[in-house]
Amino acid sequence: MPAASSPVSPAARQQAHARYAAIRAHTLALAAPLSAEDQALQSMPDASPAKWHQAHTTWFFEALLLRPLAPGYRLFNEQFLYLFNSYYEALGPRHPRPQRGLLSRPGLDEVRAYRAHVDAAALDCIAHCDADSWARGSAILELGLQHEQQHQELLLTDILHAFSCNPLWPAYGQLPELPPAPALQWLSHPGGVVEIGHPGTGFSFDNEGPRHQALLQPFEIANRLVTCGEFADFIADGGYRRPELWLSDGWALARTQDWQAPAYWLADGRVFGLGGARAMDPAAPVLQLSFYEAAAYADWAGARLPSEFEWEAAATALPGLAQLYDCAWQWTRSAYHPYPGFRPLAGPAAEYNGKFMVGQLVLRGASLATPPGHARATYRNFFPPAARWQFSGLRLAREPQQGAPR
Amino acid sequence: MPAASSPVSPAARQQAHARYAAIRAHTLALAAPLSAEDQALQSMPDASPAKWHQAHTTWFFEALLLRPLAPGYRLFNEQFLYLFNSYYEALGPRHPRPQRGLLSRPGLDEVRAYRAHVDAAALDCIAHCDADSWARGSAILELGLQHEQQHQELLLTDILHAFSCNPLWPAYGQLPELPPAPALQWLSHPGGVVEIGHPGTGFSFDNEGPRHQALLQPFEIANRLVTCGEFADFIADGGYRRPELWLSDGWALARTQDWQAPAYWLADGRVFGLGGARAMDPAAPVLQLSFYEAAAYADWAGARLPSEFEWEAAATALPGLAQLYDCAWQWTRSAYHPYPGFRPLAGPAAEYNGKFMVGQLVLRGASLATPPGHARATYRNFFPPAARWQFSGLRLAREPQQGAPR
Amino acid sequence: MPAASSPVSPAARQQAHARYAAIRAHTLALAAPLSAEDQALQSMPDASPAKWHQAHTTWFFEALLLRPLAPGYRLFNEQFLYLFNSYYEALGPRHPRPQRGLLSRPGLDEVRAYRAHVDAAALDCIAHCDADSWARGSAILELGLQHEQQHQELLLTDILHAFSCNPLWPAYGQLPELPPAPALQWLSHPGGVVEIGHPGTGFSFDNEGPRHQALLQPFEIANRLVTCGEFADFIADGGYRRPELWLSDGWALARTQDWQAPAYWLADGRVFGLGGARAMDPAAPVLQLSFYEAAAYADWAGARLPSEFEWEAAATALPGLAQLYDCAWQWTRSAYHPYPGFRPLAGPAAEYNGKFMVGQLVLRGASLATPPGHARATYRNFFPPAARWQFSGLRLAREPQQGAPR
Amino acid sequence: MPAASSPVSPAARQQAHARYAAIRAHTLALAAPLSAEDQALQSMPDASPAKWHQAHTTWFFEALLLRPLAPGYRLFNEQFLYLFNSYYEALGPRHPRPQRGLLSRPGLDEVRAYRAHVDAAALDCIAHCDADSWARGSAILELGLQHEQQHQELLLTDILHAFSCNPLWPAYGQLPELPPAPALQWLSHPGGVVEIGHPGTGFSFDNEGPRHQALLQPFEIANRLVTCGEFADFIADGGYRRPELWLSDGWALARTQDWQAPAYWLADGRVFGLGGARAMDPAAPVLQLSFYEAAAYADWAGARLPSEFEWEAAATALPGLAQLYDCAWQWTRSAYHPYPGFRPLAGPAAEYNGKFMVGQLVLRGASLATPPGHARATYRNFFPPAARWQFSGLRLAREPQQGAPR
Repeated sequence: MPAASSPVSPAARQQAHARYAAIRAHTLALAAPLSAEDQALQSMPDASPAKWHQAHTTWFFEALLLRPLAPGYRLFNEQFLYLFNSYYEALGPRHPRPQRGLLSRPGLDEVRAYRAHVDAAALDCIAHCDADSWARGSAILELGLQHEQQHQELLLTDILHAFSCNPLWPAYGQLPELPPAPALQWLSHPGGVVEIGHPGTGFSFDNEGPRHQALLQPFEIANRLVTCGEFADFIADGGYRRPELWLSDGWALARTQDWQAPAYWLADGRVFGLGGARAMDPAAPVLQLSFYEAAAYADWAGARLPSEFEWEAAATALPGLAQLYDCAWQWTRSAYHPYPGFRPLAGPAAEYNGKFMVGQLVLRGASLATPPGHARATYRNFFPPAARWQFSGLRLAREPQQGAPR
Repeated sequence: MPAASSPVSPAARQQAHARYAAIRAHTLALAAPLSAEDQALQSMPDASPAKWHQAHTTWFFEALLLRPLAPGYRLFNEQFLYLFNSYYEALGPRHPRPQRGLLSRPGLDEVRAYRAHVDAAALDCIAHCDADSWARGSAILELGLQHEQQHQELLLTDILHAFSCNPLWPAYGQLPELPPAPALQWLSHPGGVVEIGHPGTGFSFDNEGPRHQALLQPFEIANRLVTCGEFADFIADGGYRRPELWLSDGWALARTQDWQAPAYWLADGRVFGLGGARAMDPAAPVLQLSFYEAAAYADWAGARLPSEFEWEAAATALPGLAQLYDCAWQWTRSAYHPYPGFRPLAGPAAEYNGKFMVGQLVLRGASLATPPGHARATYRNFFPPAARWQFSGLRLAREPQQGAPR
Repeated sequence: MPAASSPVSPAARQQAHARYAAIRAHTLALAAPLSAEDQALQSMPDASPAKWHQAHTTWFFEALLLRPLAPGYRLFNEQFLYLFNSYYEALGPRHPRPQRGLLSRPGLDEVRAYRAHVDAAALDCIAHCDADSWARGSAILELGLQHEQQHQELLLTDILHAFSCNPLWPAYGQLPELPPAPALQWLSHPGGVVEIGHPGTGFSFDNEGPRHQALLQPFEIANRLVTCGEFADFIADGGYRRPELWLSDGWALARTQDWQAPAYWLADGRVFGLGGARAMDPAAPVLQLSFYEAAAYADWAGARLPSEFEWEAAATALPGLAQLYDCAWQWTRSAYHPYPGFRPLAGPAAEYNGKFMVGQLVLRGASLATPPGHARATYRNFFPPAARWQFSGLRLAREPQQGAPR
Repeated sequence: MPAASSPVSPAARQQAHARYAAIRAHTLALAAPLSAEDQALQSMPDASPAKWHQAHTTWFFEALLLRPLAPGYRLFNEQFLYLFNSYYEALGPRHPRPQRGLLSRPGLDEVRAYRAHVDAAALDCIAHCDADSWARGSAILELGLQHEQQHQELLLTDILHAFSCNPLWPAYGQLPELPPAPALQWLSHPGGVVEIGHPGTGFSFDNEGPRHQALLQPFEIANRLVTCGEFADFIADGGYRRPELWLSDGWALARTQDWQAPAYWLADGRVFGLGGARAMDPAAPVLQLSFYEAAAYADWAGARLPSEFEWEAAATALPGLAQLYDCAWQWTRSAYHPYPGFRPLAGPAAEYNGKFMVGQLVLRGASLATPPGHARATYRNFFPPAARWQFSGLRLAREPQQGAPR
């Protein structure tokens, strides 16, 4: 901590104000098509109500920024510290995750008032805090905004899951059309020593570093994602009935839950999505896949999933890769583990990423539900292999070869 | 079915109109203090959202009265036949009970529109139907109204349970004060052959008949319910730690779930109820007891629970019994089984009562949450022995004796 | 307790010796066809290993008779007090029921040595104890023998269940052939006031009393049990697919567990039993039924189950009833609740029966697996409605009528 | 497959005979201290009875070697193909894993006869088969022997778990004393490109290849395993109560199951092991740790777990590493995933390893229970992170540094 921080430029304050206001407003815009009843829904323990997402992201600024750093900040409601803590053990006890859907109170109006209260304090802090506070708080402010962007995507995935439990198949709204998928091509990477991890300029999460070298074998990677039409071929070829294609855990789960197709493929041939139930588009990327389904498909196709290092090396060095960040997160064949020399953030934010580094797989890229400006090549998203409610698809990889893929 | 029914009197139509309108309006009045978010809550599979109660009682009139009997009736929404069927196998498939809380759609406004649509058709039918339809429909109309009254009480018990899951302890509203409990007295019944079951004048449920004779031993019964103060003595005397007082199933459940007091008694000494969390009133009847707790208390007190026949015989013949219908349903030591010669109703209403006649205990009386005019001495309420979210208490009985009870 | 008991006659001692020795030997004889591995099996939490039955019945004499009453009795192994207590809270902590199958030690040989040790002490006590001890111990001695007889039947039902989980379908051994079933006849009982409960001469369990009067309506009861052939007709007529025949809990369970036939009816048309898997005999009584299946069959047959009072009144007063005690326990339509004025035994045996008096149904009669001399008309057996591994069948009852039953 | 194989030398046949006979005999020797009842025990779904291990390893030779390759081989019992298949989907249906403990039949004697039958056929095949069969079968013969060695260790870990469920704490027998642990030293590895995977001479499992290069950062690694005394310090310092030390999944599990110490540490200060319950030896390596506990300890100690590549590089290149193969498997911070270019074996053995490559962590080294000659530096053992019944401990690693470790 420096003895005296340099003064904060007005331009820096203005920029922070604009960025804060824009990201916070985007959350409200995403929730706008939803009724108060919609926003209170929790359809499974892994998903959270839209109202909770709005409150929790607000709690983040209150608990990690305003309360420790803004002198005189007055809590909106002391009980919210308990209600809207997600998983931060260091910040005290918290409301059980599976019961988030039981909170009809505070109502949506009160959560919006909570947001307004915190926004006023945060913007005041941005406008007027002294240089020391600025120095200490700017990183956590940015982390809070990145955190809010993550929850913007979760708000969409979670309401989509909730709607998928309603036999009326409600539509969230219209989304921009995805660009047409190009014809499949295999792009070659020569392997060798590559640099992995965030280079350090601009924001990154702690799990993207330290940047380090890794040694890759030569490989090939597909220029686009697997499509619904291709996945339908897998199904037609008995993909969900052939254990030899599946990892053992995946096969057991698929049998227990009687998987016949991706989670949002309806029995009548339609596919459920944010726009409601629609005819399956064979050219669209297949979405809401679990890792198990992605790996089984890859095996059936005579290919494999890329490692996260292959993906990152390709995304940063190979021209011609389409659908990197605008369609679906892409399962990799890499466990979500720490990079060599990884150290979590200091303070309460230590719990942000590191403690989840077992039992999950890395997804790379970004999806149609990722907010603008949030994606980058070193980003490490992660979910358990059974997760089927994210915008998750797959991009194939394989060993170098002459022949054409199946 | 008679070849020609006698004409329906205008007075009968007016009376039916008034009764229908009053009962239906009471449901809306009960829901009025609740937000749309509150009304969508389902806090456990055994409880249902307030919105669902409003829709399901409406479905009852639509599916059992209007659809079969009102020519030209137009369904409000065909999918509601599926969504709001509770358990009638004969009326087709239905939405799974544990998922009632996932239906943010239809929204509360749409459910109210559904009610208005059905009300208009029902009132039109009451006003204009021919004599034959009247003859065929009047019993089901009355059953629908009695059914709605049952759900009025459930609406309150269920929202109270939902609120009990919220650490903010929301208050539903103010209820009328209960009358003060009289001093405890034991009233003697001589036993002998008594008439049990509904005598046949006025409405009754099928499970209240046939009326038949039963032979009772002499017994004594308390003039009032057990109070919170008395129950606190039981707790202070180790009531929840002494297996010898408990039925085996109850002891196992109490240990598994770590019961220390009635379900809505808070750790800080307050008791949660429709008015929120309030200081425990020693003179008030203890509520929200399971059968297991009631039976353990009775054993501790050197008494027992009455049988349902004893209760009915006392309620109809013994002067001096207080708190029969205005405080709490009273657990009896009787399993909910059919009376000799029991026959379920004909048609879809056959499933109303009979198929639940195993695994449950009978409660007699009525509670502070029972709507006016719904209670009677032959009424058989029933719940599983573990149920702790109803307005259920206990009235003691014992063998004839000289000494004073503990 | 008298100041001085009258001397014990040598004949009484000889009779007790003989009875003790015979019953204890019968247990060993029942276990004889089983290997040590067989006798260690526990196939579900509700069943116990044959070895455990042998140890627990021995523990009963040790813990309730020898330890309190035999001066100088030396425990065989102090840890056995913990290992082989079944459910007596007053006698200290105990090994968890679902883990009885994990006790390879003590081995079968050691359990037999335990039996021999206790037998020697018990027989010595029978031969030499003073009059006071005799007076205090004879009732518990008899209770221990009746208890052992109950476990003799359970030893058979439990090993049969364990063998039913083995795809090799092992046979326990040959049992005597059941007598052929007579042609179905309906016997009429006029109803009226009847005496229910044990009259007091000879041994009875506490739950068989107090003897008291009950008032019955007239009824008819079948002279024999329902046969496999009749039950096969029920199945062929869609019995397991028609919810209108079932109690709600039963239907839910049957669907969850995909019931298609009684538990031991194999897919290839054979029926599994103590003699192994054999061709279904249409004339044999149907066995291993749950209460739910029994009640559904009765409904399909246009009849019902008798109440336990009807059963007892018929068994004691109506000539012509076959298959009362030699085929199968017979489900009644009565919950297992206390008789009016019921008081449990004093001392540790208080826990023998009373604490189980909720959530179960009464079965009357006895079965092919009941040891000789153990059955009587007032005997109340009890199991939860879902139990399917006992020798449990059904005898129909109905209201008086002219027509023939289906 | 060659058109004509070269003749098999008598020495090769003799060597195969001796190796087969010795390994098969070792299994019997390991089972010798156990009674038939002991050998039938299954204490959890993840563990198998000792009898089953003996039968399944025999099945392996029957189903993968004799049946496809030995002309005229007669099955011992066709049903054993079903009963003793573990998880090979390609070899047909199989008995459910959690029910292995229900198989009192076949008895232990019959399983031994099964072993003798298969041994005779296998030794006959070794002695007399033609050159073609030799060429096709020798790899599967060796795989079967390696497989049997794996089950030798599991036989011990599984019976130890079963005994740990018995409050009598039975001892399996005496094991050779472990050598005393040396004083802790940190050994430095310079990192760089290393060769990983089996070099190809001699047997290896498919998951140990392909051999490939990997790039390591410099690191330090402990010369010995963490001791019980060191682990007791962790406990005394609140190790099981401090969430900041734990991965999130581990913390949740530890709280749910109320972990207070390693699984076999008794409340009285003793540690349960193959020799029974004994005083904790502070110098002995801590055993039966889950990955979660190992990782929490490492964090508390200011260190980390090595990656499997670091472990392998150290084991093959660094002098001074003790306790590599004779104490405990060592958890690494590496998920069990395929090496680049991994291909499973052809034929039914394809299911041996590859299909388990998700959700598990790699352990390296070997344990006191690993049979002689089975360990090597490239061996990849694997278990889920919650597994606590293996001989699993930990060896610390850390980044290069000057200071001494805690």
